[in-house]
Amino acid sequence: MHNTFGTLFTLTTFGESHGAAIGGIVDGMPAGIDIDMEFIQSELNRRKPGQSKITTDRKEDDQVEMLSGIFEGKSTGAPIGFIVRNKSHRSQDYENIRDLFRPSHADYTYYKKYGIRDYRGGGRSSARITLARVVAGALARLVLNKYGITIQAYTSQVGSISLDRDYKQYDLTKTEENAVRCPDPDKASEMERLIAQVKKEGDTVGGVITCVIKGVPIGLGEPEFGKLHAQLGAAMLTINAVKGFEYGEGFAGTSWRGSEQNDHFILSPNSENTDEQAITTRTNHSGGIQGGLSNGEDIYFRVAFKPVATLLMEQETVDINGKEAKIDVRGSHDPCVLPRAVPIVESMAAMTILDALLFYNSEKM
Amino acid sequence: MHNTFGTLFTLTTFGESHGAAIGGIVDGMPAGIDIDMEFIQSELNRRKPGQSKITTDRKEDDQVEMLSGIFEGKSTGAPIGFIVRNKSHRSQDYENIRDLFRPSHADYTYYKKYGIRDYRGGGRSSARITLARVVAGALARLVLNKYGITIQAYTSQVGSISLDRDYKQYDLTKTEENAVRCPDPDKASEMERLIAQVKKEGDTVGGVITCVIKGVPIGLGEPEFGKLHAQLGAAMLTINAVKGFEYGEGFAGTSWRGSEQNDHFILSPNSENTDEQAITTRTNHSGGIQGGLSNGEDIYFRVAFKPVATLLMEQETVDINGKEAKIDVRGSHDPCVLPRAVPIVESMAAMTILDALLFYNSEKM
Amino acid sequence: MHNTFGTLFTLTTFGESHGAAIGGIVDGMPAGIDIDMEFIQSELNRRKPGQSKITTDRKEDDQVEMLSGIFEGKSTGAPIGFIVRNKSHRSQDYENIRDLFRPSHADYTYYKKYGIRDYRGGGRSSARITLARVVAGALARLVLNKYGITIQAYTSQVGSISLDRDYKQYDLTKTEENAVRCPDPDKASEMERLIAQVKKEGDTVGGVITCVIKGVPIGLGEPEFGKLHAQLGAAMLTINAVKGFEYGEGFAGTSWRGSEQNDHFILSPNSENTDEQAITTRTNHSGGIQGGLSNGEDIYFRVAFKPVATLLMEQETVDINGKEAKIDVRGSHDPCVLPRAVPIVESMAAMTILDALLFYNSEKM
Amino acid sequence: MHNTFGTLFTLTTFGESHGAAIGGIVDGMPAGIDIDMEFIQSELNRRKPGQSKITTDRKEDDQVEMLSGIFEGKSTGAPIGFIVRNKSHRSQDYENIRDLFRPSHADYTYYKKYGIRDYRGGGRSSARITLARVVAGALARLVLNKYGITIQAYTSQVGSISLDRDYKQYDLTKTEENAVRCPDPDKASEMERLIAQVKKEGDTVGGVITCVIKGVPIGLGEPEFGKLHAQLGAAMLTINAVKGFEYGEGFAGTSWRGSEQNDHFILSPNSENTDEQAITTRTNHSGGIQGGLSNGEDIYFRVAFKPVATLLMEQETVDINGKEAKIDVRGSHDPCVLPRAVPIVESMAAMTILDALLFYNSEKM
Repeated sequence: MHNTFGTLFTLTTFGESHGAAIGGIVDGMPAGIDIDMEFIQSELNRRKPGQSKITTDRKEDDQVEMLSGIFEGKSTGAPIGFIVRNKSHRSQDYENIRDLFRPSHADYTYYKKYGIRDYRGGGRSSARITLARVVAGALARLVLNKYGITIQAYTSQVGSISLDRDYKQYDLTKTEENAVRCPDPDKASEMERLIAQVKKEGDTVGGVITCVIKGVPIGLGEPEFGKLHAQLGAAMLTINAVKGFEYGEGFAGTSWRGSEQNDHFILSPNSENTDEQAITTRTNHSGGIQGGLSNGEDIYFRVAFKPVATLLMEQETVDINGKEAKIDVRGSHDPCVLPRAVPIVESMAAMTILDALLFYNSEKM
Repeated sequence: MHNTFGTLFTLTTFGESHGAAIGGIVDGMPAGIDIDMEFIQSELNRRKPGQSKITTDRKEDDQVEMLSGIFEGKSTGAPIGFIVRNKSHRSQDYENIRDLFRPSHADYTYYKKYGIRDYRGGGRSSARITLARVVAGALARLVLNKYGITIQAYTSQVGSISLDRDYKQYDLTKTEENAVRCPDPDKASEMERLIAQVKKEGDTVGGVITCVIKGVPIGLGEPEFGKLHAQLGAAMLTINAVKGFEYGEGFAGTSWRGSEQNDHFILSPNSENTDEQAITTRTNHSGGIQGGLSNGEDIYFRVAFKPVATLLMEQETVDINGKEAKIDVRGSHDPCVLPRAVPIVESMAAMTILDALLFYNSEKM
Repeated sequence: MHNTFGTLFTLTTFGESHGAAIGGIVDGMPAGIDIDMEFIQSELNRRKPGQSKITTDRKEDDQVEMLSGIFEGKSTGAPIGFIVRNKSHRSQDYENIRDLFRPSHADYTYYKKYGIRDYRGGGRSSARITLARVVAGALARLVLNKYGITIQAYTSQVGSISLDRDYKQYDLTKTEENAVRCPDPDKASEMERLIAQVKKEGDTVGGVITCVIKGVPIGLGEPEFGKLHAQLGAAMLTINAVKGFEYGEGFAGTSWRGSEQNDHFILSPNSENTDEQAITTRTNHSGGIQGGLSNGEDIYFRVAFKPVATLLMEQETVDINGKEAKIDVRGSHDPCVLPRAVPIVESMAAMTILDALLFYNSEKM
Repeated sequence: MHNTFGTLFTLTTFGESHGAAIGGIVDGMPAGIDIDMEFIQSELNRRKPGQSKITTDRKEDDQVEMLSGIFEGKSTGAPIGFIVRNKSHRSQDYENIRDLFRPSHADYTYYKKYGIRDYRGGGRSSARITLARVVAGALARLVLNKYGITIQAYTSQVGSISLDRDYKQYDLTKTEENAVRCPDPDKASEMERLIAQVKKEGDTVGGVITCVIKGVPIGLGEPEFGKLHAQLGAAMLTINAVKGFEYGEGFAGTSWRGSEQNDHFILSPNSENTDEQAITTRTNHSGGIQGGLSNGEDIYFRVAFKPVATLLMEQETVDINGKEAKIDVRGSHDPCVLPRAVPIVESMAAMTILDALLFYNSEKM
């Protein structure tokens, strides 16, 4: 069941980087939702390779085919099966590494666990398989739209270039206006230059994606082991290359005093009435979640991506027979995954929030 | 099922801070394990209140009673039920806040979700209920001992006082030698002084716990959504007051180049033979996990704790009727949870690793 | 997780026949339900030993203690932990069989699986542990009452004495008026005489329990692997001594033609309007479930119980050392479990229906 | 998650009778298994329509395409995605019933649950989607073969024609020698004549399938809610048209005395040694399972199928607008599902046993 995400809204995925197809099954999609295929494909396009000069040159159309669960344009409540055929099978690119373990990749651990060396571009461990998450995330967002819940992620750091203001200081609609998906145009240009430089060197660079979720009702998440931020964190940590997750003030907030970090309850200044609906907090250091449950404020969190492990330079390694060797990977690879990871972060957030929402609905009598 | 943790080795918990008892059921405990009750109680004692002058003064014996699953000193394979009776019921301490929402606590979100205001010390959302995790974690460690897997956590930061070296530079056996559970005696003294100062001010302070797991076989964890670090992160994020999780080089590593962060495979210098068992990595920036699977190196990660929300000072808030109010909490509270959270981090790690190990065993044919 | 039942409304249990206590944790109990402790205890009393001369003489008060999840008489949404202390520990009754495997009991299979011989009355495999199910079932019924859903089981066969009419021909409120829990007073007397006779012989006898659920909304259950009758069947088959489950016309209906068994849709004769709410079926051979989903008609099913395996007579067996032996069990045992199993069947049905109802609620947008 | 079966070895399915494709994802397939595609396709062929004159005439090739999880002829441990394209889309056959609810079908309950009327041959509720189970069952059997576990089902009753001897009295290898899949050639001929007659009348008939599992190690299954027979029963009850399940002596055994039904332990007459491995039972009324765990004897059970609901005759019903109507279904339909259900029963049994086996393996230290 480790290829399944979620409990009430679930995604189960299959596929390898260079197999016949990648796909998945979404179960728990509410019935009667208009399935906007253009939106789903456009989300896939945000993730696909070859969008700009700072991503990999691998050519893939990534056209999704829906196989079930939709009738006359609407979801039926039945599971939605979908596939994306792999076109760029150039597994010959991998011939020269078929017996070598790429450093900091999953090659070695997969080989030891399964006894199989699927050398074709990482096989199941490839980030390419995250496209199934984007399809499911787009479906989830079609449902969340009905609840007025919106999700927006953006690149907030590449290498050591980072945004110095919090999300409220930016116009997040500008995120899609540059290749790096950063709402600050100047920083975006800097980041692009850095990525281009790193690419030229055959090297890679990491960064941080920030995500903001608005419009979540109060009370999503479940106590003890189902805390909403634990679910979000688990979701993000399953994304390839992710090394850390923090929400609210996160690691930086650990050096604060409680008196600096507590969010005081106040009556909403936007509201004339005084009923409990109108309660808000003066600050939102909590990141929209208190005691593991959403409190109605914006949820925001940050996700750390390491530099990708595939370098276009010679590295030392060991081969499948336990001999020391040199490895020199070829082919098309991303110098920085951040731009293409933005829709993946949003997709995982969307699935997590929808799953929590269905639990929340189940509790209403 | 949100009060259940794990899949093959599971803990299900119940109880509130000021209810009759807190307890749990451990399911999936392998049969035939010697149940060392002294060890289990000593782990509980590491977590219990009133251990030192820098923790809360609440007096609780926290004596665990095992109710099932053990026969003639050994686990039987049946579920292990256990309870710890609450003694310090002083819910009168909470009379003055029965209609008030404490800032940055779960009071408001629980009230909105459940329509019930259990004002007695946080009820189900209290960190007191984590004692059930320590019992289960101790049981898990009894099993992990048989596999040679060890887990050691320590306080690596309090407020802005932090250790400046990585875990390999310290003698971790010294962790228990001071009240703050920090292996650097000088830093420990500084941290203690800071906590004492903060306590005097009625304020609180956060920090970071680092955890190291040694002896994990290669191949624990499951691809895609069951990655070992995602399971560890989810586990840590369920601990009260945790705001962030990172493993390997984490957030700091996001500004590195791939060529700096990649861990090259080498033949183990400690080994004379050249079979594949002897493969290791020159560095361990990955934190012992590659592609979501353990690679045999040390697993290490860091957990961010915010300053606890209970302040012994007046704060502004809103009451249950939607009126603005002042709140002044009394009673015994921790100025800093880090010292007592160390065994909780270890316990969650132990349960996570054992669960992954049982999966791993299920895959061996 | 095999000591957990359910998905959204769950029961996790622990305890052995002769351990310190038996208990459980109910998770997913909706908040705000009045917890009628008298009702819960009265349900436990229907199951407890020593109710009448046709059940075991074992003396147990079976007083339940609720430990959490209830505040000021109402459920809080937190897990409800509960225990029942074992009083009749007479494990000396079992001294003479400590090395012997009782025929058709779980002694041998447990020993082979776990390597432990808990000889005290079956240990974890004892039917005594079903008392935890009755507590949870009573809690579930408190919720179902709010939805107008009622559950009524009764003994419809003991040995070869069976009711010859279907449930609609009986006044099921008479079920509790006799020791055997059969709504037909004449058959009940016959059954009681048979049980008394069998008891005198040191033998045992089986039978069938029929269960009827009324008031279930249309659409409970989930397609494919979550069919409502599959969930009910799985629930019933977990009860000790159960060997079969059928619903609707069951096994007898396999020899009918489709034209005899199909339930035609008609407009409800009880309704003046013609909207779709008023659709019913002329017959109910389907047993209230079509395509795995409830159709609004009565759900009814039958559960087969084998004669209990504990005989008060000498039997041949093999001992723990692999030597042939004779076994002669002593102590107090039920000659027929049917009467005491009626509340267990109802409890499992109640938990199953409530779990399905919570799923159903989660699907409403 | 209700389109997912199993816990460690899982099948998640998608597809509708007249959609683009039916398929699924098998997760938890052990790595390194030779994938015998001919065997998998031959199993599908046993289920496919149009095999003989007593099944539906619907023409479908039912060619399975494997999309992932297999590399160089072996399973890799990654999920196996597969699809079968639907060819016979003749949904025009259903035009005349698009507003009508077919009696004893899922049309009405699905419509009420989801608010969608997918009138094309039952949509998701069609038995056609069980083909995904046969693919997964065949994969499971490839693993079970390695453990020496065999599964054999056969038609033991059609209408009122039933086998009068138990499975040991037949040569089960003869099952595939006739169209009805019955190991008794004479009874098979009678059954075929009955089915032909019923077909001519536009009617349908039910029956019983018996299944025998040999070679299961001692100790599969889990106590309390994971009893092996409860898992088998739940699996069988998810098959379309199934109304009952019994194992061992089942319903018939309810009228026996305990002294008649108990299985006495003896030393195996086939073994010279006296170690505990050689323990067996004189009889096997238990059906190979005691206390919910396999005891090493043959597991056998019976599954009741109602006559299929699709009749080629006029029936009364109600339409989607709540008006009384007549319905007259056309097209190709099975007069009796038993012959084609034999491989489905085997497949569900294979998946259940493999899942239990993986749990069993996880418990070995």
